[in-house]
Amino acid sequence: MRILILGIDGYLGWSLARYLADEDYLVFGVDSFFRRKWVREMNSISAVPIASMKNRIKSYEDAYNKKIVFYKGDITDYEFLSNSIKDSRPDVIVHFAQCPSAPYSMINQKRSVWVQRNNLIGTLNLIYAVKDYAPKAHIVKLGTMGEYGTPNIDIPEGFFEIEYRGRKDILPFPRQANSWYHLSKVHDSNNLLFACRNYQLKCTDIMQGIVFGFQLNSNYNKQMNTRLDFDQAFGTIINRFCCESIINHAITIYGDGTQIRSFLPLKDSMKCIKLVIKNPPAAGEYKVVNQFANIHSINELASKVADVCKVFEINAEVTKIKNPRKESEKHYYNPDNKNLRDLGYVPSTNFEEEIMKLMEGIKPYKNRIGKYGEILNPTITW
Amino acid sequence: MRILILGIDGYLGWSLARYLADEDYLVFGVDSFFRRKWVREMNSISAVPIASMKNRIKSYEDAYNKKIVFYKGDITDYEFLSNSIKDSRPDVIVHFAQCPSAPYSMINQKRSVWVQRNNLIGTLNLIYAVKDYAPKAHIVKLGTMGEYGTPNIDIPEGFFEIEYRGRKDILPFPRQANSWYHLSKVHDSNNLLFACRNYQLKCTDIMQGIVFGFQLNSNYNKQMNTRLDFDQAFGTIINRFCCESIINHAITIYGDGTQIRSFLPLKDSMKCIKLVIKNPPAAGEYKVVNQFANIHSINELASKVADVCKVFEINAEVTKIKNPRKESEKHYYNPDNKNLRDLGYVPSTNFEEEIMKLMEGIKPYKNRIGKYGEILNPTITW
Repeated sequence: MRILILGIDGYLGWSLARYLADEDYLVFGVDSFFRRKWVREMNSISAVPIASMKNRIKSYEDAYNKKIVFYKGDITDYEFLSNSIKDSRPDVIVHFAQCPSAPYSMINQKRSVWVQRNNLIGTLNLIYAVKDYAPKAHIVKLGTMGEYGTPNIDIPEGFFEIEYRGRKDILPFPRQANSWYHLSKVHDSNNLLFACRNYQLKCTDIMQGIVFGFQLNSNYNKQMNTRLDFDQAFGTIINRFCCESIINHAITIYGDGTQIRSFLPLKDSMKCIKLVIKNPPAAGEYKVVNQFANIHSINELASKVADVCKVFEINAEVTKIKNPRKESEKHYYNPDNKNLRDLGYVPSTNFEEEIMKLMEGIKPYKNRIGKYGEILNPTITW
Repeated sequence: MRILILGIDGYLGWSLARYLADEDYLVFGVDSFFRRKWVREMNSISAVPIASMKNRIKSYEDAYNKKIVFYKGDITDYEFLSNSIKDSRPDVIVHFAQCPSAPYSMINQKRSVWVQRNNLIGTLNLIYAVKDYAPKAHIVKLGTMGEYGTPNIDIPEGFFEIEYRGRKDILPFPRQANSWYHLSKVHDSNNLLFACRNYQLKCTDIMQGIVFGFQLNSNYNKQMNTRLDFDQAFGTIINRFCCESIINHAITIYGDGTQIRSFLPLKDSMKCIKLVIKNPPAAGEYKVVNQFANIHSINELASKVADVCKVFEINAEVTKIKNPRKESEKHYYNPDNKNLRDLGYVPSTNFEEEIMKLMEGIKPYKNRIGKYGEILNPTITW
């Protein structure tokens, strides 16, 4: 099976390329290296060193004795994207090639417009390129649980059957996103739903929870590390808490910490995406899966990280700072994740063990991370 | 009161400038003349002759003894838009400056991307410019009833209270748009909802039905005509039926004609927008109004036009052609329009009279329209 990964140089993109290496997949990749640029723009680096794409591919070829065909370029350039698809003839296209940061999208007018334009046009180009050059390919699109916001009712997977004024229908579940970035993913979801119905494409749209960790197995070549960000824009919560702890910085909770979100370790994300790849929807079907292992409050996660810290003889202080974001702090939250479990996903529940592995993994880079201690306090507010 | 009309050179924009002239409003306008360009691109013209913007303004000044300040430019250029807002200091900004055509947006990849980018970025720029330079201004945004699609339940105005699995919430009503153009308006609605909540802006988002006619009063200067399109991309249904009839072309129904849509005469659209302007929402409020006079099937409208034709001694033939669009032909359709009626809107019900006026208005241009008979058959399909 031929798989084209858009955004192969990113946190999830490179992880997926490695994760699929053991199986009978031919991997093709596209990237413009924007993620490296954005993190530099935030005056930060990956907590763990990462190799150049060239060296990544070389190490991959050495380790697995198989090739990755790589196309350098920007998918908002339609000709480039079409050519990559024509050349790779993919059965599956996994689309990670987007700017994934709420804070980055909230900095100013220029960034807001850039993020929405970049994400929207990349996906729209993908729809056209698939329609014209790979109409049978399965589009696996990365969305986010953040598209739903925090409604006061259960969150189904993409659609729900409702009764209203005595009549029934199955409708798309309303999205209430809270940043220009999250809204860009909502726009994509709406565009993809239409594209599937109108052009008979097949798409799985993954509403993913917050991923943490960077290791997929214990004996790996460090040239093949995926990135791990901890800055305010690209660092996600558990990764950030661990990087704070390892340099003896306080674990900083935004607001009162009662916000509830859905989470999963990186290895669960990979497992789920493989299940999605193996189970394509029918032509014309737009399928939504909610992808997460468990739900927790921010306070619970901070406690878990602080507990694990004791093993490393780190006495982690947990502090609450003024929430730089506008978000509900006390709210109902009950999302489904039945679609992936029906495909065979068994969620990891032992987050402590995953956090332990993550702490061990970043321990050698304590000094590297320590140089960036001052960027741990958020300056982007909304 | 200072009113800035974005898209003042368009069908509704120029009508609104004239409609507000009698009252104590100071009108400012922005346009890039894209509509004139698009219609030329469709090898068509306005059924009634229209003056240049320069002559329009001159005639306006002569007739009403008051000025229009005009800024020529494109609102996707943030600096241009901000400067227009800083200069005009508006209390109300009416945003019509978008590409309004489903068929145009479905032509090919280039047009699809262009329409979504143009519409999305214009509105996003407007949000930022209002936030930064006119935070108290009321944004009156033109959306479309087409955002909702044709759900099998009643269509409320923007939001609805539902019970789901035993819990209740008030949520945005799901949108199921059926073209890249209609989707661009859905993206705008989602962006504006967030902008109001996050930046405490005030916006009325108008879900407008299909408008017809071009006259606002009987004794007007022809230099002040608004445009009236009849081509496949920018001509809307009743206007197109009348232009077909006046040149003895058959009235062409797409598909079986059982599709139901909401409609209103141009003068009702203007009345409604004035009511909206006079009744701004509170800071932070995103208010949706469904703006239409009545709902009809396409078959009913064709019959109405054919009946009116008899008065003009035209024996109009009604023919059904293969539907160039993918749309439900037999469906439930029951939208609310209570919000505007609560503000005092009394819908026009005598469509025959409005159609009669329209036919009279275009009669002198029979030969002008006749030259374009061949463009009446749709070539854009999806």
